Amino acid sequence: MWCQSCKEEYEVEDAGTCKECYEEASETEEELKREIDDLRARLLFLRLPSPTLDAASAPHSDLLLHAIPSCSSSGAGGDGGDAARAPYTPAVPAHRVILASRSPVFRAMLENEMEESRSGIIKIFDVSYDVLRTFVHYMYTAEALLDEQMASDLLVLAEKYEVKHLKTYCEKFITSKVNNENAIAHYAFAHRHSAKQLLEASLSVLMDNMSTLADREEYKELVEKDPRLVVEIYEAYLNRQVNTAAGKDTDCCSRK
Amino acid sequence: MWCQSCKEEYEVEDAGTCKECYEEASETEEELKREIDDLRARLLFLRLPSPTLDAASAPHSDLLLHAIPSCSSSGAGGDGGDAARAPYTPAVPAHRVILASRSPVFRAMLENEMEESRSGIIKIFDVSYDVLRTFVHYMYTAEALLDEQMASDLLVLAEKYEVKHLKTYCEKFITSKVNNENAIAHYAFAHRHSAKQLLEASLSVLMDNMSTLADREEYKELVEKDPRLVVEIYEAYLNRQVNTAAGKDTDCCSRK
Repeated sequence: MWCQSCKEEYEVEDAGTCKECYEEASETEEELKREIDDLRARLLFLRLPSPTLDAASAPHSDLLLHAIPSCSSSGAGGDGGDAARAPYTPAVPAHRVILASRSPVFRAMLENEMEESRSGIIKIFDVSYDVLRTFVHYMYTAEALLDEQMASDLLVLAEKYEVKHLKTYCEKFITSKVNNENAIAHYAFAHRHSAKQLLEASLSVLMDNMSTLADREEYKELVEKDPRLVVEIYEAYLNRQVNTAAGKDTDCCSRK
Repeated sequence: MWCQSCKEEYEVEDAGTCKECYEEASETEEELKREIDDLRARLLFLRLPSPTLDAASAPHSDLLLHAIPSCSSSGAGGDGGDAARAPYTPAVPAHRVILASRSPVFRAMLENEMEESRSGIIKIFDVSYDVLRTFVHYMYTAEALLDEQMASDLLVLAEKYEVKHLKTYCEKFITSKVNNENAIAHYAFAHRHSAKQLLEASLSVLMDNMSTLADREEYKELVEKDPRLVVEIYEAYLNRQVNTAAGKDTDCCSRK
């Protein structure tokens, strides 16, 4: 028989689908691709020019956001030093209508008679200028260039301002980077910020490497700082063992 | 053989694909669906609340748009009568940053020292209030509830303000509604507004029904108003006939 897709010959044992299903699947694929094209065009239409590119890119701006790095993190971002000397600069321009529509926290701040609404100035604490800029850029474009550090910093900011979509986006990115080296750090981070997907992924990696867990420096630190999280790792591990054993028993019984 | 997709038995002559291609296609389908989910989530994030729903739905609004229906069309929209009595009401609130980002015409108007930019009031001529409201709604949401009349009115507005995505959206909708009854009207409309896809679709329907074309009332009107468009129909028809004949000849020759 000849495969209608790859046009190569195959034997009965390598058969896949009947003609009807093949044709249906091809049609479905075409439909999905058309839908993707349509969604992409709508996305392109809805994206807004980011006001973070240069001074000229924010006409009609009615807000200024100031990054106020925390003392401990002031050296981390590229502009941390500057910001420490002049805590309110540089500012990121933005628009009330955009921030209010993306974040219920900004909405409440801007639609009530709060200081930020009157002055048009919002201080964003404990972030570097770079992180704030990326945060604002995302609000306009739904796009961000991430590395692990940026994704973590943005996730924290997204959680604080309740920008769910950005939080999920960062969590997915970090989850894709979990490995045995960073699993403890990500596990503790996920706990702090209620990032369920990241928590499960890092816990799973930890449980796959239980024999070396206790030797790690980060493990010892976690036992010191937050022993309850360590207990949860052991509990999850034990649970998995019990379930695996139960699964084997059922398997065994069903075979009898 | 059993089809891996529908799980039914089939004969050799009904075979579709090999196993490998089936598995690949299934994976592709899953990937496309994941991409669609991702794009939909980003769209949902980028959509803005429409300021056209009620007075409270446009906080931070810095623009007012007024529909000024033309005399001839003032009876067409639901609010035509009202608008004729009080030409500047009702107004549709909007935001400079949004309109400027969707339309180069609004951008030029708002970023230069024009009357509209100073006053924050833009008059939109020759449209009903309903059409203007739908237009503004689309600028925020990339969504509109269309019928043929609304799609035509919106297409005209989208062309005027160079909102390409909306024009394409309306043109697609109208194209899907072309039939022998409305083909002449849509053909003339497509010509006036450089709507290529609609032009081709309506021309194709006209050419499929040439024998009854000249009997139609709309045909006689078009001959009166714009005979060059009628000439183009005949030229296209003749062209098709010549090409079909040439195709048959080639077909004939290659068979010899």
